[in-house]
Amino acid sequence: MVAMVIEQLETAFHPRSIAVVGASGNPFSMGHRFVLHLVNYGYRGQIYPVTPHWSEVLGFKAYPALKDIPGPVDYVICCLPASKVPALLTECPRKGVKVVHLFTARFSETGQEDAAKLEIEVLRRAREVGIRLLGPNCIGIYYPKEGNAFGYDFPTEPGKVGMFLQSGGAATEFIHYASLRGIRFSKVISYGNALDLNEADFLEYLCQDHETEIIASYIEGIKEGRRFLSALSRAALSKPVIILKAGRASAGARAAASHTAALAGSLGTWETAIRQAGAIQARTLEEMMDLVVSFYFLPLILGTRVGIVGGGGGTSVLSADEWEEAGFSVVPLPPQIEEEIKKRLPELWWGWVGNPVDVSIFPEEAFAINLGGNILRMMAQSPHFDLLIANITVGGPFSTTEFAAIVKREVEDIIDIKKKGTKPLAVVLNGGTLDIKDFDDLRWRCLAEQKANLIAAKIPVYSTADQAANALIRLVNYYQRKEAIS
Amino acid sequence: MVAMVIEQLETAFHPRSIAVVGASGNPFSMGHRFVLHLVNYGYRGQIYPVTPHWSEVLGFKAYPALKDIPGPVDYVICCLPASKVPALLTECPRKGVKVVHLFTARFSETGQEDAAKLEIEVLRRAREVGIRLLGPNCIGIYYPKEGNAFGYDFPTEPGKVGMFLQSGGAATEFIHYASLRGIRFSKVISYGNALDLNEADFLEYLCQDHETEIIASYIEGIKEGRRFLSALSRAALSKPVIILKAGRASAGARAAASHTAALAGSLGTWETAIRQAGAIQARTLEEMMDLVVSFYFLPLILGTRVGIVGGGGGTSVLSADEWEEAGFSVVPLPPQIEEEIKKRLPELWWGWVGNPVDVSIFPEEAFAINLGGNILRMMAQSPHFDLLIANITVGGPFSTTEFAAIVKREVEDIIDIKKKGTKPLAVVLNGGTLDIKDFDDLRWRCLAEQKANLIAAKIPVYSTADQAANALIRLVNYYQRKEAIS
Repeated sequence: MVAMVIEQLETAFHPRSIAVVGASGNPFSMGHRFVLHLVNYGYRGQIYPVTPHWSEVLGFKAYPALKDIPGPVDYVICCLPASKVPALLTECPRKGVKVVHLFTARFSETGQEDAAKLEIEVLRRAREVGIRLLGPNCIGIYYPKEGNAFGYDFPTEPGKVGMFLQSGGAATEFIHYASLRGIRFSKVISYGNALDLNEADFLEYLCQDHETEIIASYIEGIKEGRRFLSALSRAALSKPVIILKAGRASAGARAAASHTAALAGSLGTWETAIRQAGAIQARTLEEMMDLVVSFYFLPLILGTRVGIVGGGGGTSVLSADEWEEAGFSVVPLPPQIEEEIKKRLPELWWGWVGNPVDVSIFPEEAFAINLGGNILRMMAQSPHFDLLIANITVGGPFSTTEFAAIVKREVEDIIDIKKKGTKPLAVVLNGGTLDIKDFDDLRWRCLAEQKANLIAAKIPVYSTADQAANALIRLVNYYQRKEAIS
Repeated sequence: MVAMVIEQLETAFHPRSIAVVGASGNPFSMGHRFVLHLVNYGYRGQIYPVTPHWSEVLGFKAYPALKDIPGPVDYVICCLPASKVPALLTECPRKGVKVVHLFTARFSETGQEDAAKLEIEVLRRAREVGIRLLGPNCIGIYYPKEGNAFGYDFPTEPGKVGMFLQSGGAATEFIHYASLRGIRFSKVISYGNALDLNEADFLEYLCQDHETEIIASYIEGIKEGRRFLSALSRAALSKPVIILKAGRASAGARAAASHTAALAGSLGTWETAIRQAGAIQARTLEEMMDLVVSFYFLPLILGTRVGIVGGGGGTSVLSADEWEEAGFSVVPLPPQIEEEIKKRLPELWWGWVGNPVDVSIFPEEAFAINLGGNILRMMAQSPHFDLLIANITVGGPFSTTEFAAIVKREVEDIIDIKKKGTKPLAVVLNGGTLDIKDFDDLRWRCLAEQKANLIAAKIPVYSTADQAANALIRLVNYYQRKEAIS
């Protein structure tokens, strides 16, 4: 049974041909956009627009009905009105269709009795003809490797994050924002009302998918609780699974019902069940993004001893608070580094420089010999630390040109240390929420440029210590749990 | 006593002349930067560089010693090494100096006995000659109105936020990031080791300062606990006071000791005392910024009934969760708006459209008549809501040019409603953490541009619902408490 679902989903991701039913020449219609995306993202199979109203769509010959297509059709993207879906399903078997993605919405989520009845009829018909459904009320699949996508300007290169999300909007947002942070995706599935294929199917599929190393999910309501939790326990042992449960509060649950007809369920029960299954819970899309960034760029970390370098006194105090409150140990500097400081600096600094290393108290000669960078290098070699954090701040008293030069050297050091690969390393750098006029400001341009350099070097970058520490402690806890039970 | 301190601090903000002692022609020295900032920010009093090593600094005649200055000196910025401070203080009375800002550091914060002794001697000397000290180990004052500043590229126009921060780096960061969000400052005081003037003095000063409407503070350790808490109780009744207590965890407290020699104290005691005094507590600089933004742009709000419009289904569900979990009520739509929907939309949408208003489920004809904007307008007129939230998201299936047009209309609606002034209004808009290459992307440029338009219209903008809801519930609670006890 599991094997069969996996095979069916494989067809959805690797169709030899795709029919967009309800295709259109109107560039503002989804029937147009789906064809456009297949072209733009480089899908190499057959593309068949199906519509009685247009003779061609984007240069592809359009067919009045599914049955008029000359060859077989593996996968259908359906943009028809809800009332026309049952008839379409009846047509599917003779073209060999395996999976139908119902972009079509306005079923049970409307709360209207007729619409809910029609949805039941759609499921009945699909079961009758042996077709699997994705949706209804979902935006479908993003699979960059083979050129299927549901949005504009998504990354074309693939990555290792596999996702299933009950909301197409949340999926689109996540892809846009996460791609700014260097994340790339294996497969993203938006699944709406989960009428047929549901969260348990997607989880099982992504769990065995070799292209997916990290699983993340946005769920409003669970269709098959027991099956899902048992799949979750298995999946969490093989790769990190991050779950954002939405529809937690009463207004949220009400909104979920009118969004995907989801029965949101009790949060307390959910939290316990997800934790016991070994999955990692996120409260917001942003928190999920910080978790994904962490697992994407960092290796297994089992210890909590953190070494922190960079920024001034305030940054050091606040970092120490954040990392310790999250559950890390901001351990004292080891003797070798104390010795190095004694060799390099006058007596005033002995015992004064600590962890976090406040580079702003160094005398000028320490900047000349790049003592901050060298301490970070020594930390990377020291068995006293499990994880290193570099803070890059705008808190110094420097002009923008001085600032740009300082940050450039800091980032070069960090990238150099990362390349040596001796210690997990993360960076806290806040690029700011920019106005359009700030796009010309050297300070913010410099931060955006250096952030890009860090990400290109596969170093995770977080906007705040709070976000970094709270994501990373969960990474450590995930690996600790996995280690303990395997 | 209080009146005297206030007068002394008034002199620090309104000096007729400033001497920068330890001034320098070296552009990378602080003795140069302080003179430069006075020039660049337009200080109109006398500027006297004092240094035996340079004959002039930035075109100003330099004097070998304080006593060589021809006229009186109200305020001294001291960049001398620590050992030379006592002698300088002895020179001050004959020039009529009222306040000395000791940028000079390396006193008790070093943990060295001799340095701590020297600090005590500095205080003794200051008391002897009747001079008040700011610092030591602090970066001083930012007072845009009269052209005094301690950093590059701070806003030159004044605003209504008054701050006192124990860290100059935290002050600099806060000013840079908050100014991106439309915040402007009345007076910012960085006060380092708080050897003489301390947190209680600054709080009392800002409390009575007519240019300051919101007070925010970063504190590592309290010098005069009882006096401070009693000042806090009084201040919180007249204006919002936001306090970030740093040095909470043990490593943070250790870092605070080596930063400003602060005795961080027990957090539990602190939290209770600050809450009881009626101040608003922040855990991070970013949280403090969200709170300042809230009080800066929003009026008194006493109720918790929130109306939310914009974004797709996922945004609606997540918003409902966030606002409700923070303590707001995401109330049902009132009958008048239900009626409007019945008038404008087919029966399928009756009872389906709720609060949050998921505009993505509207049929095309609703977009043509701008139903989303009109519902927001009706909410602004309705007594059923205390606060309105507009979500602007990148979650739609639109091309960037379509997206830009949609967001433009949304923002125009929001600004129009704000201008009518019938209801407090906030916006959740995430501009993303951009790479330098994203600066040319129309999507992110559009968001940055519209964010600027919103801020120019004095509308608070938050990156996430989480941040907005958690800041705004504390605004409501602050005003509720004030209402209850006054």
